[in-house]
Amino acid sequence: MHLSEVGELGLIDQIKKIVEVPAEGLLVGIDDDAAAFRNLPDSLTVISSDTLIEGVHFDLRYFDYHQLGWRAMAANLSDIAAMGAMPRYVVTSIGLPPNLSIDSVNEFYRGVKALAERFHTSVIGGDTVSSPDRIFIAITIIGHVNEAKLTLRSGAQIGDCIFATGSLGSSQAGLKILNSGNSANKEKFTSSVEKHLTPTPRINEARFLVEHFPIHSMIDVSDGLASEINHICKNSEVGAVISANKIFVDDETNDIAHLFGGNALDYALYGGEDFELLFTAPSDCAEKLQNSFQERFDLPCSKIGKITETGDGIHLETLDGHLIPIQSKGYDHFRKI
Amino acid sequence: MHLSEVGELGLIDQIKKIVEVPAEGLLVGIDDDAAAFRNLPDSLTVISSDTLIEGVHFDLRYFDYHQLGWRAMAANLSDIAAMGAMPRYVVTSIGLPPNLSIDSVNEFYRGVKALAERFHTSVIGGDTVSSPDRIFIAITIIGHVNEAKLTLRSGAQIGDCIFATGSLGSSQAGLKILNSGNSANKEKFTSSVEKHLTPTPRINEARFLVEHFPIHSMIDVSDGLASEINHICKNSEVGAVISANKIFVDDETNDIAHLFGGNALDYALYGGEDFELLFTAPSDCAEKLQNSFQERFDLPCSKIGKITETGDGIHLETLDGHLIPIQSKGYDHFRKI
Repeated sequence: MHLSEVGELGLIDQIKKIVEVPAEGLLVGIDDDAAAFRNLPDSLTVISSDTLIEGVHFDLRYFDYHQLGWRAMAANLSDIAAMGAMPRYVVTSIGLPPNLSIDSVNEFYRGVKALAERFHTSVIGGDTVSSPDRIFIAITIIGHVNEAKLTLRSGAQIGDCIFATGSLGSSQAGLKILNSGNSANKEKFTSSVEKHLTPTPRINEARFLVEHFPIHSMIDVSDGLASEINHICKNSEVGAVISANKIFVDDETNDIAHLFGGNALDYALYGGEDFELLFTAPSDCAEKLQNSFQERFDLPCSKIGKITETGDGIHLETLDGHLIPIQSKGYDHFRKI
Repeated sequence: MHLSEVGELGLIDQIKKIVEVPAEGLLVGIDDDAAAFRNLPDSLTVISSDTLIEGVHFDLRYFDYHQLGWRAMAANLSDIAAMGAMPRYVVTSIGLPPNLSIDSVNEFYRGVKALAERFHTSVIGGDTVSSPDRIFIAITIIGHVNEAKLTLRSGAQIGDCIFATGSLGSSQAGLKILNSGNSANKEKFTSSVEKHLTPTPRINEARFLVEHFPIHSMIDVSDGLASEINHICKNSEVGAVISANKIFVDDETNDIAHLFGGNALDYALYGGEDFELLFTAPSDCAEKLQNSFQERFDLPCSKIGKITETGDGIHLETLDGHLIPIQSKGYDHFRKI
């Protein structure tokens, strides 16, 4: 059945059935002009928006609708994680072609709900409109954080160690596999493909870090390491050196880069969409931080560099010991590449 | 200069220059992964989203970019008003074709800011992405309201009087003039055309009402009176009778309906986008409410009907005294009309 047969109110009823769950502190959900909720005591409210357009941010040949819902939530949850915050509510605005099947839309919302539930987050509102040619998705997540735990891009201090969670470049490697259209490769390199399609935002990891360690600055890796370290340095007015040999790239990502004649380090620096955490903390807690992180999570936490003075610039120490500037070459929505 | 020349970060810098103002309670604005603000004591947070797609919700032959920014804000502020709430912050997500001029985008944000400032609301975040063929806009507004003043669709009580602010049908009349392409008419019927292009959300009026009177239920007229009274009745589990001769339609709207051989009452019932308030309150405060409203605002407040028992259904008392059912025939995004 197509959306044009169900109508807008019919669609909203379907969505409500899928996503609506009793949510703590929520007074008004999808049923009114706006949603309304009680604030948590002693908490800041944190809010983040993210937008995906079919053909720009995702390709329906790669994503099924459940994965798309998950993926749309993941990017935004990752931003909430990078503030040291916990997600609480989500508002989804979505433009849909009228000839789309209601089953596809339901699957999309099941994907949204799957990741939302994992992090105790409830869909409380949004908007569904008709879009003539392509799907677009705008998701806004509302979270909360104790003011003392709020972690910004601007807090890095000279002498801080720089850390990154997980394997970088894997999402880009997964995209290369999907772009190649080779289904044998898709079945062989499942970890990278999954990382691209259904990444896991590092909510729990970020919360663990801000609860146990003096995290000075944090950002999520959405546009590639090069772009993100530039954001931290610009906002904190510091410089940085990152060691190429410390950046963790897993075997599968290395294999894929090799397969396509590329460089896995380039995937990590410029690929983006890894949704790992990049953060800085004082060097004297580095060892304890890494050990307790790895004990708690089945995920590497690599010490990849050091914060330096602004005048020093932002550099990569290459494998053969040279220092080269790291330029912010992440994805730019408007420039032609 | 086109967006493709300025790039994403250049665009964000421009937007920040236009919209960023010091905002009370705001700790983090556009510069980080998410925005963060302090909650107001003893307040609920209210959140509303609205989406506009070029060619579906607006036509750039009618709107200049400043008007478009204003209009995008207005619909959403109107939802906040209908909750009895005050707007506080806004998050704008926008998809833009890369060949759009930076001047157009700046004008859009100046329009957003113009209406935001009028209601002491600050842009604190958002997302700007490339959209291949058409502009889309998703706006989320965060407001606050004391729990006792929160006004829902579901609170109407049997015996309540039903009120509507302003002139209904005017936005639809303005759209007819714009659709006709007749520039003499456009200059003659400025009030309706303005109502369509740059409506004023009834924030101050709604606040006045909830502060001074026991408003039982409220909704904003975005899809036409017929659709909105159905929402109130459905959510409140009541019926209603509305008197056709009490619905206020201004002279200009009547003239325009006459010009196009239409019926101004149909514009009011099914036209939508008036962004007036439809609300119910006990009959014993009706006279005082209307008098003090009209004293305070240069705007009519019409008593248009009465809330009845559910079993009575939802009816219009026609000019010749017949009762006919009011069907919810507002704009449906997915059905073909």
